[in-house]
Amino acid sequence: MGKKTRYTVIGAGNGGKAMAAHLALMDFPVTLYNRTPEHVAAIKTRGGIELESYESGPHGFGQLALVTSDMGEALEQADVIMVVVPATAHADVAKATAPYLRDKQIVLLNPGRTGGALEFTQVLRQCACAANVTVAEAETLIYASRSEGPVQARIFRIKDAVPLAALPATRTPRVLEALAPAFPRFIDGVSVLHTSLNNMGAIFHPALTLLNAGRIESTGGEFQFYINGVTPSVARVLEVLDRERVTVAAALGIRARTGLEWLRMAYDATGTDLHEAIHNQSGYRGIKAPPTLNHRYITEDVPMSLVPIAALGQRYGVRVQGMDSIIRLACIIHQTDYWRRGRTINKLGIEQVSVGEAMRYVMEEW
Amino acid sequence: MGKKTRYTVIGAGNGGKAMAAHLALMDFPVTLYNRTPEHVAAIKTRGGIELESYESGPHGFGQLALVTSDMGEALEQADVIMVVVPATAHADVAKATAPYLRDKQIVLLNPGRTGGALEFTQVLRQCACAANVTVAEAETLIYASRSEGPVQARIFRIKDAVPLAALPATRTPRVLEALAPAFPRFIDGVSVLHTSLNNMGAIFHPALTLLNAGRIESTGGEFQFYINGVTPSVARVLEVLDRERVTVAAALGIRARTGLEWLRMAYDATGTDLHEAIHNQSGYRGIKAPPTLNHRYITEDVPMSLVPIAALGQRYGVRVQGMDSIIRLACIIHQTDYWRRGRTINKLGIEQVSVGEAMRYVMEEW
Repeated sequence: MGKKTRYTVIGAGNGGKAMAAHLALMDFPVTLYNRTPEHVAAIKTRGGIELESYESGPHGFGQLALVTSDMGEALEQADVIMVVVPATAHADVAKATAPYLRDKQIVLLNPGRTGGALEFTQVLRQCACAANVTVAEAETLIYASRSEGPVQARIFRIKDAVPLAALPATRTPRVLEALAPAFPRFIDGVSVLHTSLNNMGAIFHPALTLLNAGRIESTGGEFQFYINGVTPSVARVLEVLDRERVTVAAALGIRARTGLEWLRMAYDATGTDLHEAIHNQSGYRGIKAPPTLNHRYITEDVPMSLVPIAALGQRYGVRVQGMDSIIRLACIIHQTDYWRRGRTINKLGIEQVSVGEAMRYVMEEW
Repeated sequence: MGKKTRYTVIGAGNGGKAMAAHLALMDFPVTLYNRTPEHVAAIKTRGGIELESYESGPHGFGQLALVTSDMGEALEQADVIMVVVPATAHADVAKATAPYLRDKQIVLLNPGRTGGALEFTQVLRQCACAANVTVAEAETLIYASRSEGPVQARIFRIKDAVPLAALPATRTPRVLEALAPAFPRFIDGVSVLHTSLNNMGAIFHPALTLLNAGRIESTGGEFQFYINGVTPSVARVLEVLDRERVTVAAALGIRARTGLEWLRMAYDATGTDLHEAIHNQSGYRGIKAPPTLNHRYITEDVPMSLVPIAALGQRYGVRVQGMDSIIRLACIIHQTDYWRRGRTINKLGIEQVSVGEAMRYVMEEW
């Protein structure tokens, strides 16, 4: 084996802290970057992060090589740059990294939501970044995790078989290879349009939140989000949104997983519809609703998940009226234009292209 | 005084029973019609309805002149026909009455929701009804009432100042005059477009129900509908729908009451927005949510209130995206096309007319 892969983790939220500590505990050299120095001051002082975990999971003190808020310093030694920030920050991270990226570096968005790698690449291009970097996105964050203090992180679960794709997809094998020593659970996600259109959060999060808006806001989220929140009627809305998503994918020539297929895969769920499948398995038990509507289930998943899927639908001729309704209600509730702020076709860099051209763009070396 | 006005009440739901009993207790000759004989069998046997009421309100046994399921018999003696059925049944009632209506009879829809008198008139026309009847609509049901048994009704409140309009509005004074001995609380509502566009249920009911869908369905409606259901974010949606309604009215040259103005008028509510106004007064306390989503707040108020307002908006150039979103979600949840089933412009008989022509149609003698 050659030299250990050097990781830089961008973002010190609960996911970023869990990942940095986990990598460090696996003996990889890890740099942790956070834009705001105060947010990582305690980690810098301690020199690392205390990781707790499920039984037999990774745990202990993960010693970090560097903790910094200087992007140049953060990227200088990196082989792989793990971006673990809300998708609403991807464009800013791209801008911030553009001057410092070097040939052969890999950037992985954990996760990309919908269109993450496409937008990141488009921003690098706009910033005239000439480095031959490989941008990739994961379909979901590989951890279920939480942060319980400034230098703490806790991993509840490391997910099996998380699909990942590079842009273009010809580069996915080299990304998987670079990550394999640390993360053998990443698998080939075919293309960034596949990982983007298999984003289940787009379907589950905003609609479930909005159709329980009154209850979330009047109780502070004191109820079981999926078990109480997904009623037969709410599930019907989720199913329509899911069908719209799968239809948008089909218009692009992509066979996306249905929500039901995903539940069967992720949780071994049984049942003939989403309502049954969500209620027939234990994975959702105990998960509380968000305490407020000002939550990433809307603020991130509407502009970064639903809007790009709906935008692809509009561009390629698929009616997405259910998605439109949910996006519109989110705009009203948050008094903002999630269409304008969201990942529309122009931000993905595929505004003027046909379906065939879009597919070649994500699949073939440029 | 001349001969007592003879009333026929069509519909033996809680409102119809309260009205029939109240009229009978005021000594008017009253016929009660219900399509299904079984529903009024007990009343027919008893010969009337037992009315209970708030303190000092009307109460006692209201003896009816006739209880029937034969429309010809029901209308034969009537001066005033009070239609007290869900708006979804207005077209059927119009069809059923068309062969029997006579000159000078008055038909009042209690209430019309949106476009009731317009649709009723259009159906009479399609049935080639030649009688010179006056069709009118009330803005709301004059009672807050409930039915507690087959021959019982209970009135909680008789509302003040309920606007009413005839089609055309030139006939409103004669309707008010005919009703005045029994119902001095009806006032002139200017035109049926005014009463239709001041329909507050269109704004409050469907959106409030849908944004609490998960809670209604998982608790069976065991929470306070307005007090717990109208949170700041839910109120923002209501305000956007309300603004769309007032804008549609403005496009027709009508100054509709805002929801806030209506709350101030109806409940003396204080507050600077709908959230404050609804929470700052006691009228909504104790009102429970509907026990299921299969409730007139959606099944009636979407097709008969929201759809016609949205349809007027589309016809006369007002964007009604908030209403569209709510209608769309209702269609998904009930797996039906509320647009097709609803009161669209063609059903109102004003499909091909300009704003000026529409206004003349509702205001001036034909």
